[in-house]
Amino acid sequence: MKPSRSFASDNNAVVHPEALEAIERANQGHVVGYGDDPYTLSLQALARPYHAVLCSEMSHIYTDECGAPEKLTGCKLIPLAAPIGKLTVETVSHAYRGIGDQHHVQPKVISITQSTEMGTVYRPAEIEALARFVHDRDMFLHMDGARISNAAVAQGLTLRQATLDLGVDVLSFGGTKNGLMGVEAVVFFRPELARDFLFTRKQGMQLASKMRYLSVQMEALLTNDLWRRNAEHANRMAKLLEQEIKKIRQMKIVYPVDANGVFARIPREAIAKIQERYFFYVWNEEESVVRWMCSFDTTEEDVRQFATFVGEMVGS
Amino acid sequence: MKPSRSFASDNNAVVHPEALEAIERANQGHVVGYGDDPYTLSLQALARPYHAVLCSEMSHIYTDECGAPEKLTGCKLIPLAAPIGKLTVETVSHAYRGIGDQHHVQPKVISITQSTEMGTVYRPAEIEALARFVHDRDMFLHMDGARISNAAVAQGLTLRQATLDLGVDVLSFGGTKNGLMGVEAVVFFRPELARDFLFTRKQGMQLASKMRYLSVQMEALLTNDLWRRNAEHANRMAKLLEQEIKKIRQMKIVYPVDANGVFARIPREAIAKIQERYFFYVWNEEESVVRWMCSFDTTEEDVRQFATFVGEMVGS
Amino acid sequence: MKPSRSFASDNNAVVHPEALEAIERANQGHVVGYGDDPYTLSLQALARPYHAVLCSEMSHIYTDECGAPEKLTGCKLIPLAAPIGKLTVETVSHAYRGIGDQHHVQPKVISITQSTEMGTVYRPAEIEALARFVHDRDMFLHMDGARISNAAVAQGLTLRQATLDLGVDVLSFGGTKNGLMGVEAVVFFRPELARDFLFTRKQGMQLASKMRYLSVQMEALLTNDLWRRNAEHANRMAKLLEQEIKKIRQMKIVYPVDANGVFARIPREAIAKIQERYFFYVWNEEESVVRWMCSFDTTEEDVRQFATFVGEMVGS
Amino acid sequence: MKPSRSFASDNNAVVHPEALEAIERANQGHVVGYGDDPYTLSLQALARPYHAVLCSEMSHIYTDECGAPEKLTGCKLIPLAAPIGKLTVETVSHAYRGIGDQHHVQPKVISITQSTEMGTVYRPAEIEALARFVHDRDMFLHMDGARISNAAVAQGLTLRQATLDLGVDVLSFGGTKNGLMGVEAVVFFRPELARDFLFTRKQGMQLASKMRYLSVQMEALLTNDLWRRNAEHANRMAKLLEQEIKKIRQMKIVYPVDANGVFARIPREAIAKIQERYFFYVWNEEESVVRWMCSFDTTEEDVRQFATFVGEMVGS
Repeated sequence: MKPSRSFASDNNAVVHPEALEAIERANQGHVVGYGDDPYTLSLQALARPYHAVLCSEMSHIYTDECGAPEKLTGCKLIPLAAPIGKLTVETVSHAYRGIGDQHHVQPKVISITQSTEMGTVYRPAEIEALARFVHDRDMFLHMDGARISNAAVAQGLTLRQATLDLGVDVLSFGGTKNGLMGVEAVVFFRPELARDFLFTRKQGMQLASKMRYLSVQMEALLTNDLWRRNAEHANRMAKLLEQEIKKIRQMKIVYPVDANGVFARIPREAIAKIQERYFFYVWNEEESVVRWMCSFDTTEEDVRQFATFVGEMVGS
Repeated sequence: MKPSRSFASDNNAVVHPEALEAIERANQGHVVGYGDDPYTLSLQALARPYHAVLCSEMSHIYTDECGAPEKLTGCKLIPLAAPIGKLTVETVSHAYRGIGDQHHVQPKVISITQSTEMGTVYRPAEIEALARFVHDRDMFLHMDGARISNAAVAQGLTLRQATLDLGVDVLSFGGTKNGLMGVEAVVFFRPELARDFLFTRKQGMQLASKMRYLSVQMEALLTNDLWRRNAEHANRMAKLLEQEIKKIRQMKIVYPVDANGVFARIPREAIAKIQERYFFYVWNEEESVVRWMCSFDTTEEDVRQFATFVGEMVGS
Repeated sequence: MKPSRSFASDNNAVVHPEALEAIERANQGHVVGYGDDPYTLSLQALARPYHAVLCSEMSHIYTDECGAPEKLTGCKLIPLAAPIGKLTVETVSHAYRGIGDQHHVQPKVISITQSTEMGTVYRPAEIEALARFVHDRDMFLHMDGARISNAAVAQGLTLRQATLDLGVDVLSFGGTKNGLMGVEAVVFFRPELARDFLFTRKQGMQLASKMRYLSVQMEALLTNDLWRRNAEHANRMAKLLEQEIKKIRQMKIVYPVDANGVFARIPREAIAKIQERYFFYVWNEEESVVRWMCSFDTTEEDVRQFATFVGEMVGS
Repeated sequence: MKPSRSFASDNNAVVHPEALEAIERANQGHVVGYGDDPYTLSLQALARPYHAVLCSEMSHIYTDECGAPEKLTGCKLIPLAAPIGKLTVETVSHAYRGIGDQHHVQPKVISITQSTEMGTVYRPAEIEALARFVHDRDMFLHMDGARISNAAVAQGLTLRQATLDLGVDVLSFGGTKNGLMGVEAVVFFRPELARDFLFTRKQGMQLASKMRYLSVQMEALLTNDLWRRNAEHANRMAKLLEQEIKKIRQMKIVYPVDANGVFARIPREAIAKIQERYFFYVWNEEESVVRWMCSFDTTEEDVRQFATFVGEMVGS
């Protein structure tokens, strides 16, 4: 039997028990998270610097990565209007121009977010239409799947049915928002696209040290349907929250609640009052729209307490 | 009292218990690690693209980051000979040229590794001399401190005495090789250098999601001298290994064992035999030199068993 | 007396007479030009990769540089609506957000084009208002002055009155569109911004070999008011063209003719007919708007012949 | 007949006569040149950011481009020792390692300079051997041909025999050092490598405005053997200079004078005296070696006067 300890590197050791205990102690309650995302890397595998990525003007890659995609890939991201978070063939057709003209960046990737930043979900036919559009033009379809699990369960699809089967070329598969400790994966459905990805990952500083602590989590997520259970629960809580909020006369749900997010217009003066107790983001300052997200550990009681409190603050 | 759950983001939830269990189950034995290091980021905070970074030709940033520093910063890294891993004022003086000449990259940073990639440790006076050199020339001194704890305890210094007090401007402080789960910190000793680092970190895709699981570990490392205990133990095991290896007639220790690494010349034919049982790296193929690292969880028994096995394979 | 020939470099020699003759032979008639512009470099001097540049969605830097600004600077360019080519304080205020938020690129530069891509000219007060906006926020005002000469003469201003005196921080001063052979200059009105520009220029591959052939042209442009004479003539020809086009009932001038460009809506079917004889660009396919530019060597006869031909093709 | 003037762009006009006169007036005597070179662009067409370029440590791309290749391509340039300016199969073999290891940049291009920075010329068999080495390993052979004309005529070869026929994949063909006004070309011998070069060129800010003034010069260089006549003359002058210098007892020619450069060791105290009259570069300060280059307009009298003056200053 091989000894369990090597002398290859001090990098190969376990995590010290005191560090692990610290992790466990930290594992309670909600704390503001950030986002260390693999989207940029996926784009880098698909595009050269003179290419363009077409995406929604509200997409995470366009608004929330502090310019990482532009910095890392050198590409231009072209922001397109997407009223409920979804790109359409019509929208992208309009932006598909300057082809072969050396003064223009060349569109190479369409990136969609599923479920979208507005909590809506692309229908299968909508994704298939975009996939046909790109594949007819030697382009790629990238899916930012930070919440792909929520979208898949919302439509009763397996992960494969919700991605590969619809024509997605590359998927950023999110684990973090579905219960993992900062773990995301990039899934290439066409092996030739992944050929040099090892190097892109390392050079992009995304090769984790002590990787095993990440891979075992991804394995757990894909075991015993944990991904599905977590996502189903989060979606159900969002539906419950939607119902409760609808009872409040002064509020209005502004986007379809397809997955685990609820977006609502709220009397402006109530926002600060609610934020005194609950931390959340104002999605659109000018229109007084807020964003409320549910997760795998949101309970029915959490939702009811929250909705009651919102109702009181709104003064219904 | 504030409720423990917010509705701000599904990113703010805890880690699912099944994921945490998976982490705990993974926490045994040695497994090949990689390296997701903050060095590149530190350099980006110090240098513009037309600057150069002077470093040892064996330094981790030059050889083991798949070109991340060049890609991310745009800078040239100038590799300098460093026989036992240490840069000297003489070596860097030689490379300090082309100043003000627009055809030449402009030296701006000297990066040293402490303890070095060869397991040696810079003496305080050696670092002070380099610090004077850079500060006389409007340059910066960066320390790759993946193993700074090992270096500090080797000389009976506190972390501050081993860095700031010697003139280091920016430190990449390593936790991973000293018992943490992929946690490193960048420490700026001159606050003005850190001014925009938040953005550099995010754009460099190094802002971790669910950051709390990282910060609590770092806190644990700096509590109750865990950093010191771990490093002292690893160093002691390296000394023990050195003693044991010295008893093997056909082997020769090639660099001073100042910290937690042992580099030894070994009969070429023994390498594969030992690797059948123990995983480790050949440091220099041509000279048949191997590298053996000790860590906080290496035991005396591990060392003795290993040395005995090496001795048998070498045929002493 | 110093000999006229050195032995320093074969790069220091003159241009061979046969090459110079070839240049002279090429110096007649109009030929499709391209654009090798210094804008990207100016932006690089002003912004770090996590910064953003606010610009018109029709601006040259956003649409016609094949993504060079993003690739070279790493910055995001944020395209803003600008109906007649001009940014306003109101427009940029709307885009000035996410300040201090590490997920967002940080606005650092406003780039305006003078005269604009639509042939309009910013009034002094409009520029001053933008300058106040940026300087109140630790930002910079960049002017893409490919046609600054046309804008200055249109308002009876000197070059200094049209730039520095209005609060412009950095000017890309165009010579090429005003009669030079591919010569542009970057003018820093605050010397500290230019400190490292020598290196940025060289690393950006914009340091011309045999530079003297460029600098003597710039000198000529600024001698005997050549810049003014050329621009005044081009503007006058545009005014003449506007008058002539206005006589054609089926056509409509769509933007104020402030400088040397005329933009007109034209019956769609006439475009191809006119292009059989004259090369020009369709500015807006959907709205059937064409762009016609005048230059220092356009003659009154050119304009009248052209307008007559257009009138015939339109069938007035 | 088409009118000679279009209304497409003010960019399409000719160069103003006063600018052209300025150019002609500037066309006499030697003036310090710089270098705006196409090498970086060639490399970008061949390599992705995680690739490495193997080159001589004295090569122009490594030492004289202010880091442009690293900045633009993201690649690491690996400097190799090359005593008389030439890489050998043995040297590059040594640096060909880490293949498939994600921590290491992957060697993809070997770049050679012909004639070399030391004035020597690779023999055909030497280039063929390097070409075999790269093509056996899915790599490319790039030739920095700033002085390829001098190398070709030195060996009695046509340009094709000196490049394509030896296995070169991409050539940076220099016109500037051989009599043109800042004109260089990138020649792809395998068309598939050039597929996207239009975009790379524009994004790399190397698409010249009023391009015709460049292309006519290149045409002139390739007409009536101008390239050959110029290069032959420059080489002959270097040979003459070598002869004259050899007569000076205290001096020593240090590299074979294969092309148009002469490198000589000279008594240190004579350098400043000669530089009072003639501008030139000290190649190696420590060894007191100077570099003298001849060009198409160097005359026999220039050489003899110079050698005489050198002799006097050296005090022979």
